[in-house]
Amino acid sequence: MKLSDLGEFGFINKIREKSHDISGVMLGIGDDAAATSITPGMALLSTSDLLTEGVHFRLDWSDPVTLGRKSLSVNLSDIAAMGGIPRYALLSIAVPAGFSMEFLSSFIDGFLQQAEKYSVSLIGGDTSASASGFFISVTLLGEQYPDRIVRRSGACNGDLVCVSGTLGDSALGLDLLKSGSYSKEQVIKHLDPTPRVELGTLLAELKIPTSMIDISDGLHADLGHILKASAKGAKICIDNTPLSDIFRNSVSKNSPDYYRFPLSGGEEYELLFTLHPSRLKDAEEAAAKAGTSVSVIGEITEESGLFLASADGSSYSAELNCYDHFALN
Amino acid sequence: MKLSDLGEFGFINKIREKSHDISGVMLGIGDDAAATSITPGMALLSTSDLLTEGVHFRLDWSDPVTLGRKSLSVNLSDIAAMGGIPRYALLSIAVPAGFSMEFLSSFIDGFLQQAEKYSVSLIGGDTSASASGFFISVTLLGEQYPDRIVRRSGACNGDLVCVSGTLGDSALGLDLLKSGSYSKEQVIKHLDPTPRVELGTLLAELKIPTSMIDISDGLHADLGHILKASAKGAKICIDNTPLSDIFRNSVSKNSPDYYRFPLSGGEEYELLFTLHPSRLKDAEEAAAKAGTSVSVIGEITEESGLFLASADGSSYSAELNCYDHFALN
Repeated sequence: MKLSDLGEFGFINKIREKSHDISGVMLGIGDDAAATSITPGMALLSTSDLLTEGVHFRLDWSDPVTLGRKSLSVNLSDIAAMGGIPRYALLSIAVPAGFSMEFLSSFIDGFLQQAEKYSVSLIGGDTSASASGFFISVTLLGEQYPDRIVRRSGACNGDLVCVSGTLGDSALGLDLLKSGSYSKEQVIKHLDPTPRVELGTLLAELKIPTSMIDISDGLHADLGHILKASAKGAKICIDNTPLSDIFRNSVSKNSPDYYRFPLSGGEEYELLFTLHPSRLKDAEEAAAKAGTSVSVIGEITEESGLFLASADGSSYSAELNCYDHFALN
Repeated sequence: MKLSDLGEFGFINKIREKSHDISGVMLGIGDDAAATSITPGMALLSTSDLLTEGVHFRLDWSDPVTLGRKSLSVNLSDIAAMGGIPRYALLSIAVPAGFSMEFLSSFIDGFLQQAEKYSVSLIGGDTSASASGFFISVTLLGEQYPDRIVRRSGACNGDLVCVSGTLGDSALGLDLLKSGSYSKEQVIKHLDPTPRVELGTLLAELKIPTSMIDISDGLHADLGHILKASAKGAKICIDNTPLSDIFRNSVSKNSPDYYRFPLSGGEEYELLFTLHPSRLKDAEEAAAKAGTSVSVIGEITEESGLFLASADGSSYSAELNCYDHFALN
């Protein structure tokens, strides 16, 4: 069946049947707007991400269920980076004429799988025809007490720069997908990233980070955002970036990609945050509880600028392109 | 300048400079998510609408400022249809390579003009490349006390069916735009509709409507949504649909469009609502206060089905196609 046969209302009804409302939803899909509640005393967190075919994903690289999961994951990662608790999602899609209903149905299944896993309710959205290409626009709403929200702007001189999980895996996966030769485990982090929601919320509850961001544009660019917002600088030891076994087994230490991927690869969806050295142990415990790890990769400096150095202290000066979605790649 | 020269971050900074935060915004554009407050005791209202080039708009029909305004207006209309107060907007756009920065800048100006007019803050969104075509996705957040929110499901037997403003103008405008021969005033309601935010909020505050929806799919289809949600029927007098002077001067009474446009034309963005006959005077006063009018076009019936009749009581039976955005037109 094609989507155009089912029509907009038929498709919305199908989504409505599949989605399960969680607490707080007074009125879900099916009216002019959804009505929900936010926990008294908490601030509302809002984020939107676009995923466009040929820019953020290729239909020959990703199965629909995985693409559905990732569409929510990239937004979950943004809420996690604020230390927020995700609550409600709105999903809008534009599809070309003749697009497969089976694909879309599986895509929705993946989206709802991830929503259920993170206790998120799908409460609205829109569907439309597209003259060409599949477009996905997700808005995710979350909540957190105002004094627990972690901004980009609080990094202090002497704070440690920390990162969750491992870096470089997504860039490696994208590179291998382009080459056409890869194993499933080499590309999974690019296609199906794990948003660090539990870690982000735990860190915020314990008021550990002085600043936080998720790595979507690449470590170099995203640390740059923290430094700019905090009006500080940083010294990063490039040999301290955490690498996975898959990464070490796939990339030679002599290849420029060995540093380039972890330092500038986008779409890692790990949390990058700063903390006072006295809170490192707390952060490590929180990470263990959340099923991941925390690595210290450097230090915040009063002097502005981002200084990348090897373990021997020598400066690393390769050009690191920012991962910019306007650059079609 | 092209957008690709400025890059994603440059463009976001430009939007940030232009947008003015209104009360309730703790953290606007520029972090991983926005943080805002909702008035204590109020429910959060959320709605999303997609506008895609070639389906919802054509760049040779609309100037960018007007398109920017309409992108927010269609969402304002959804919040109005709940009786809600609009508060915060997220705007995501995908643009083809080489898209004009001047066009986009004017588009944002139009969006922000409309945001300011309705006291809405632009708090976030996303920008992306598009393989082809301009895509606009807007999420609008609003608020209202739960007992004032107007749903589609409350229409009662004997309620009057009312509509704000006039009908058929948008369908007429679209028809004339397609023909290529029109005056500005004939197409303005299609290109630059006025969302009935003030009327919707007033009606909700006074608890006048038993059900409400905005006319985006056409009177016939949208009244159908109310009837389905309310498990009722309705009798509509097709000679009572309110028509503008422009419409009467543009469409002959002998043309099938004379009834077809007001009954099935989409994108009118008028409010369609039901009320107990004793509240009609209150509704008329509210409409006058909001700078528009209210017309009674029929009555809710216990018996299901939508019966369309002329003033002489004879049944009107022309086929009314639902305005479905999946049908590329």
